[in-house]
Amino acid sequence: MSKQGITSRDESFSDWYNDLVKRAELAENSPVRGSMVIRPNGYAIWELMQRALDDMFKATGHVNAYFPLLIPMSFFAREAEHVEGFAKESAIVTHHRLAQTKDGLGVDPDAKLEEPYVIRPSSETIIWHTYKNWIQSYRDLPILINQWANVMRWELRPRLFLRTTEFLWQEGHTAHATFEDAEHEALTILNECYARFAEEWMAVPVLKGVKSKNETFAGADHTYTIEALVQDKRAIQAGTSHHLGQNFAKAFDVTFTNKEGKLEHVFATSWGVSTRLIGTLIMMHSDDKGLVVPPRLAPIQVVFLPMGRDEDIRKLTYAKSDELATLMRGHGVRVKVDKRDQLSPGFKFNDWELKGACIRVEIGPRDLEGGTCVVARRDVGEKVTVAFDQLADYIHAQLDAMQHDLYARALAFREANTFRVDTWEEFEACFAGEGGGGFVVAHWDGTDETEAIIAEKTKATIRAIPMTPLHPDDVKPGKCVLTGRPSTQRVVFAKAY
Amino acid sequence: MSKQGITSRDESFSDWYNDLVKRAELAENSPVRGSMVIRPNGYAIWELMQRALDDMFKATGHVNAYFPLLIPMSFFAREAEHVEGFAKESAIVTHHRLAQTKDGLGVDPDAKLEEPYVIRPSSETIIWHTYKNWIQSYRDLPILINQWANVMRWELRPRLFLRTTEFLWQEGHTAHATFEDAEHEALTILNECYARFAEEWMAVPVLKGVKSKNETFAGADHTYTIEALVQDKRAIQAGTSHHLGQNFAKAFDVTFTNKEGKLEHVFATSWGVSTRLIGTLIMMHSDDKGLVVPPRLAPIQVVFLPMGRDEDIRKLTYAKSDELATLMRGHGVRVKVDKRDQLSPGFKFNDWELKGACIRVEIGPRDLEGGTCVVARRDVGEKVTVAFDQLADYIHAQLDAMQHDLYARALAFREANTFRVDTWEEFEACFAGEGGGGFVVAHWDGTDETEAIIAEKTKATIRAIPMTPLHPDDVKPGKCVLTGRPSTQRVVFAKAY
Repeated sequence: MSKQGITSRDESFSDWYNDLVKRAELAENSPVRGSMVIRPNGYAIWELMQRALDDMFKATGHVNAYFPLLIPMSFFAREAEHVEGFAKESAIVTHHRLAQTKDGLGVDPDAKLEEPYVIRPSSETIIWHTYKNWIQSYRDLPILINQWANVMRWELRPRLFLRTTEFLWQEGHTAHATFEDAEHEALTILNECYARFAEEWMAVPVLKGVKSKNETFAGADHTYTIEALVQDKRAIQAGTSHHLGQNFAKAFDVTFTNKEGKLEHVFATSWGVSTRLIGTLIMMHSDDKGLVVPPRLAPIQVVFLPMGRDEDIRKLTYAKSDELATLMRGHGVRVKVDKRDQLSPGFKFNDWELKGACIRVEIGPRDLEGGTCVVARRDVGEKVTVAFDQLADYIHAQLDAMQHDLYARALAFREANTFRVDTWEEFEACFAGEGGGGFVVAHWDGTDETEAIIAEKTKATIRAIPMTPLHPDDVKPGKCVLTGRPSTQRVVFAKAY
Repeated sequence: MSKQGITSRDESFSDWYNDLVKRAELAENSPVRGSMVIRPNGYAIWELMQRALDDMFKATGHVNAYFPLLIPMSFFAREAEHVEGFAKESAIVTHHRLAQTKDGLGVDPDAKLEEPYVIRPSSETIIWHTYKNWIQSYRDLPILINQWANVMRWELRPRLFLRTTEFLWQEGHTAHATFEDAEHEALTILNECYARFAEEWMAVPVLKGVKSKNETFAGADHTYTIEALVQDKRAIQAGTSHHLGQNFAKAFDVTFTNKEGKLEHVFATSWGVSTRLIGTLIMMHSDDKGLVVPPRLAPIQVVFLPMGRDEDIRKLTYAKSDELATLMRGHGVRVKVDKRDQLSPGFKFNDWELKGACIRVEIGPRDLEGGTCVVARRDVGEKVTVAFDQLADYIHAQLDAMQHDLYARALAFREANTFRVDTWEEFEACFAGEGGGGFVVAHWDGTDETEAIIAEKTKATIRAIPMTPLHPDDVKPGKCVLTGRPSTQRVVFAKAY
């Protein structure tokens, strides 16, 4: 247990995660089964994520809209795989009124809905019902719409951020005239938005690939994914982009007149990332002291800790801190000055390590005399004395360096935990025991059955069929690691959250 | 019916509104009773509203968080007035799974929840349940949290934007150590955020006041409101800020140790504005041609219409428009270049009047030769020839002028439609017939009964008891317009949306 009240990762990665999320006040469980409260410290990260992603979506031609939370049950039944995928985990609204009964407040039996509504687990059905009225001709295409929303999928084993009954996300839903246009869209989102966001903002290297049929979205033609490998060597699916083919257009009878004057079904994509990204971020970079956040997504990039036992001295260190904080804010840096004078410096150091401020600046009476302050980076810890007039430059350089270093460290970790194996013995050994086993790159015979047997034996699933091989040899033919049957390329297995 | 396919306001204000919302593609009805689809043109206005309001909330010390969509039914029962206010209009979740039945897809009877959940109509109950764990001492106060969310209130007579079963809003929920602190908070939100936003961004003058008991929020001590008077002389409640006293703290047993070491119940406020603001904006400024939006909230402030029958010429007018558009974007102006070359200039003029671009810039072949373009403001219509090198300055000045003029026009309209009456005959005459009757400033004896009788006879309700008198004489004693009983001040009546 660290000073911050967090179980160490070595002791139990799972307890470490739960402790950290609670102690850093990022989120907590709620009285609604599987639903979380996202506290201000956690929500501030989500807001920065939203802003960055939204800018990327708009830069690639998308606009936002909003569709209803509730979906008529009959809409669900229209796309067979979709209902199969979501029926078992949906919240159902059956009544529209409460009433006083003899046992107190209850559901009013006279206010039963003719048709139940499902709280959206994803909005393909209601959106494609709507698009039917918007699309007549190829001139109405493409439609490039995104929605920021809450969704619900009933979870039996919830986990804060990673898997919750209600979560926040964005869901893009686009309509196109051709298969190629939809394919281009699905890949643009994966490459230009999701992978770039993960790598450049979250400092999380991601594997890009196609999902096997077992892991493809319910109702999609094929699904692209970005997968991260976090510190306990498990994979997290961080975002998915689906080429839906004409499946939803057929289910909702959405046709258009093409340039040749012929009636055709519309092609579609959908794509989403969620508050699960916050869980990914935590598991990727944080340590036993608490949260570590890459600077571009850190709500507090720099915290000033003015010190001094006497009020007279504090007055001076406070003033200097305020002055420097104003300067840094002028440079676009997110800054906080901690003036909680009833708390000891030691307590505050621990607290800001827990909360994940990227850089700590200490200013005490001796610093004032010397015209310097003591600066420490959250991920490195080493204290460096910096002159006041150098501080802005130093902080900029350190924020850039931290963003870069976190990515480099995560990439090195992934590379050190990516294994190529050719025998079943090696494969099983990788996934033995409770922890993860890294990314295991192995040949697979391409069948659902083999994938299912492997999952049953090892808990490892195919995270992705890489779009570009991790190594040139990975696309040479080989033999399936389980069955020995022929395989055209290696795929990536991992235990996943 | 205008060229834009909109019923005129004179013919039917209600049809005009519905036509405009649909033709300008702001929103439409959905298959979910009372819920709307907010289309990209409407959502873009909401995004600008959100950004401005969110900046104001943060500037006044608030942070964002997120609480669950669902509320356990028993929470509702805790605050008597609150459940009374919302029980009749709430969507109830009773099951968590669908299943195939002999009649097709249906609610799985084996997946009935032990306790039903209510989809939040407002989040006081779930939030005060949560705050109980966050508050022990006066040091934990204040808590200044806002949430951006969707809520549901079952509506029998829905109206796009103005009254929908599901709507988007923000809800602030704050906790304080004293009555005075909570009062200060409720007023800060009303004055520094809501009224300023309405007047400075929406160009909507608002009446600030206190609600009568009949119109006070269910569970509040008292409610502050901002009220707008729109073109059909009806009032719209645009935002409310509630001082909740200790009601929710008592219902959820939230106490704190004050500075004197004594246990006390916490004081609270809540406050919200919603997508109803978009309806207010439309009804305030738009005309028979379509949408008129004040520049600060206009998704498209300037539209360039490059013209030319031949492709060679269009190439030149397109290039010039792109050049000027880039220049304007550099000035922070939201710009669109309309290159739909299959459409006639006349169609485009009408289309951009319908969609509410603030300023139209036409560039044709003769303009290119003369180094000028033709500029028209949406609210005025007059065409002015402007030299290219003057365009940026001219547009800035016109955007400022339009923002100012819309406000001035709205204020003049309100003043022309504010009436002081002293007899019941005059009062009834103001509200006779189908339309609104403006703001009617009259004496009232202060009783719920009188207010109810007046509402029944005239459909007019007390919109607000003004916080500062509209006229000095309004706070002189008088006689109730209905009962003749003594009254200490005039209040403002109107028919309301």
